[in-house]
Amino acid sequence: MRELSDQSGVPVATIKYYLREGLLTPGHRTAPNQATYDTTHLHRLRLVRAMLDLGGLSIDDTRTILTAVDSREDLPGLLTATHRRFPHTPAPDDTWAHAQVHHLAHTRGWHLDPDDTAALVTLLRALRDTGLPTAVDAYATLADALAALDHDLLHHPNTPHWAPALITTLGDPLVALLRAVALRHRQPGRLPTPQ
Amino acid sequence: MRELSDQSGVPVATIKYYLREGLLTPGHRTAPNQATYDTTHLHRLRLVRAMLDLGGLSIDDTRTILTAVDSREDLPGLLTATHRRFPHTPAPDDTWAHAQVHHLAHTRGWHLDPDDTAALVTLLRALRDTGLPTAVDAYATLADALAALDHDLLHHPNTPHWAPALITTLGDPLVALLRAVALRHRQPGRLPTPQ
Repeated sequence: MRELSDQSGVPVATIKYYLREGLLTPGHRTAPNQATYDTTHLHRLRLVRAMLDLGGLSIDDTRTILTAVDSREDLPGLLTATHRRFPHTPAPDDTWAHAQVHHLAHTRGWHLDPDDTAALVTLLRALRDTGLPTAVDAYATLADALAALDHDLLHHPNTPHWAPALITTLGDPLVALLRAVALRHRQPGRLPTPQ
Repeated sequence: MRELSDQSGVPVATIKYYLREGLLTPGHRTAPNQATYDTTHLHRLRLVRAMLDLGGLSIDDTRTILTAVDSREDLPGLLTATHRRFPHTPAPDDTWAHAQVHHLAHTRGWHLDPDDTAALVTLLRALRDTGLPTAVDAYATLADALAALDHDLLHHPNTPHWAPALITTLGDPLVALLRAVALRHRQPGRLPTPQ
């Protein structure tokens, strides 16, 4: 365990905590008080750190995603973690937002389950209510282009089976950060004062 | 305050909590125990809810962003909230990741401050260490296209001055959700088992 700690830079106490929380699988026991860890453990530990530190996920959400990873669950199962951030209340009754979401799904042939619909309606309604009515279609086109890159990446021959979990935990923050840098580049100073 | 609660659907106790935390400005006092609230308060309350519930921000981060909004701070000031999610440690010494980030900034003329660089190097390193080495350039191109849409939206004549805060709190989750839906559409079943 000390070696695992040295290689990963994660303190032994933290590794023990992850073991207790079921985020890491125990080492191969060689004696009652001795266990060995291999590169599988190192990779798993890095994945756990990425999800907690960079993805900002809770211990519980991380465990849920890792369970899906371990059971080789399909992509939909893995991606539901993205939705967990949003209130799971039924979609508010909002004709404008529902029409936008319906149009989006219809024109692209996208299947939206009730949670997707609820989350999208909630977001679009919040954008409108805070004064930024979004024509969602142009954003959807770019999101689809991102998904095409993700798809290629997931099908690369060396891609590990936990890769889908990385799209939401690292891929989303990466795009968010690049988007902020690019926006600052396009608009380096103060915004024009409206109204 | 009861009216504000009715119109927004936010309980009175919660509104009082936001007032104590300095997220809302007090109403116009009409008597020692009486204050009136107008549509400015309603808009502000919706913004606070969006940041907390949908953006997943903490009370402290929300207050920081709102202070920037109130002082009509420029866009860079408002967007730094995006970075707060990432460790602010100095960029790890990683030649590959640094070269990627340097190339990115150089070819696009993007200005990266030390926090941007640290966050990008950390993310790229984590992606590589978890087995998903990302050619960041294609993602950067799409992030720039998102920023172009954001830029147009921010310059719409009716856009309120707090709009930049919405890009990170609602715009990023919106794109993340659409990206997940689109990826599921492209890859509806189990991934091919690699290795």
